[in-house]
Amino acid sequence: MAGEEQFCSGPGGMHGTYGSERPEALHPGGVTQGGYSSDIVVDENYVIKVPRKMHVAAAAPLLCAGITCYSPFLKYGVKAGTNLGVVGLGGLGHMAVKIGAAMGANVTVLTRSPAKRELALAMGASKVIISTSADEMASAAKSLHVIYNSIAFPHDIHPYLNLLKSQGTIVMIGGVPEGAMPKGSFALIGRGLRVAGSLIGGIRDTQAMIDFCAEHDILCEIELVPATPDAVDVAWERAIAADVKFRFVIDTAATLE
Amino acid sequence: MAGEEQFCSGPGGMHGTYGSERPEALHPGGVTQGGYSSDIVVDENYVIKVPRKMHVAAAAPLLCAGITCYSPFLKYGVKAGTNLGVVGLGGLGHMAVKIGAAMGANVTVLTRSPAKRELALAMGASKVIISTSADEMASAAKSLHVIYNSIAFPHDIHPYLNLLKSQGTIVMIGGVPEGAMPKGSFALIGRGLRVAGSLIGGIRDTQAMIDFCAEHDILCEIELVPATPDAVDVAWERAIAADVKFRFVIDTAATLE
Repeated sequence: MAGEEQFCSGPGGMHGTYGSERPEALHPGGVTQGGYSSDIVVDENYVIKVPRKMHVAAAAPLLCAGITCYSPFLKYGVKAGTNLGVVGLGGLGHMAVKIGAAMGANVTVLTRSPAKRELALAMGASKVIISTSADEMASAAKSLHVIYNSIAFPHDIHPYLNLLKSQGTIVMIGGVPEGAMPKGSFALIGRGLRVAGSLIGGIRDTQAMIDFCAEHDILCEIELVPATPDAVDVAWERAIAADVKFRFVIDTAATLE
Repeated sequence: MAGEEQFCSGPGGMHGTYGSERPEALHPGGVTQGGYSSDIVVDENYVIKVPRKMHVAAAAPLLCAGITCYSPFLKYGVKAGTNLGVVGLGGLGHMAVKIGAAMGANVTVLTRSPAKRELALAMGASKVIISTSADEMASAAKSLHVIYNSIAFPHDIHPYLNLLKSQGTIVMIGGVPEGAMPKGSFALIGRGLRVAGSLIGGIRDTQAMIDFCAEHDILCEIELVPATPDAVDVAWERAIAADVKFRFVIDTAATLE
């Protein structure tokens, strides 16, 4: 009812397009099978309208990576003049840079890879900090209102907390069962900091995000692969090795034709 | 400038009434000496007006315990209808119950001590949960918008995270160098939860808090002790042993007379 369908729980609650346990009568195998098919039946309340002018393959990952930035940016007040940090320039991070910049934020990208500097600037970042450089990190101390942390493996977040202004928020979207948390509450109290989890976004916000991206000519950087076992296996191995610029999209329609 | 003076840093920044390093010329011994004296010189911008009708000793701890609840309650939207959890019914917790209830929140106290049940209800709580009872904790799952966590020693906060509604906030005010944090970001992402640190509050909010407490006849529960070494030593030992109902106040004026 609040427009945050992703938090609904129980049998009538949120279920994923694929792999969610559902009644066998409706879903062969007892799990949702959608996504990799030419046609799909869905409730009209859960359909997003993608403007014709958008490249459909490059728009597809917006429904995940795009909304995963857009929703917390709305909640944590990213707007013109916000100093926004983006940790990691992968599938999620590069969308955060594009969407954050289009919202008018001053985007600082934090990455371990000097090779990504030019790319980040081209996508709309106004500053790039190499996170392994103590000097560069020190120069940005207490400068950011919001940090979008897309790292999806255990890591020390204290160096990033140091970059937040008082009352700043670090948004966590990479699920780590253990680690990637402050060591104790002390790290948050002295400057009134917040650590926030965020999960995709609601349907209303997802439509708003697509409309926003269409208006600002924002698309995901993708590599398109055919829906053949070999091609998908190679893409999978490369995804595991973090070797993807920046999202793989499986071209089911072309393959089925 | 934002009314959050407690976050100002550097030589011109926030300094405590006592024990803060300051120039020797102004502060004998090189640290601030205020608080335990009959008179004190302060900048007029940092004076709070306490209405005459308030009992001055019982109002004194509001300047710390009171604002430490009031400020985050404003920031995290505690108002009529908010389901507010208060963990721990000590000096800070009992103020959170009184102030939260006066704001119109439905206050649930979480405590290990069944003996505190009646006391919590008398202070304005509408519900008391014994945190060591798995049944009672389960009955309150996903029921709270905001949790005010006043525990000041390492503890597992996951049982409290389970009590939050989606997008709920747990406010940490007890400084713990290690522990009292989620194990990993997973614990926050699935339901969009937030862990927030909070530090006292600004001068403007402190005055608003005093006015609010005066209007709602809210005072701190105190034990008044004279400013003699023996009495202070006993109070100190009892404070360490968590044997205080609910704040000690040192009656400097009476002692000096």
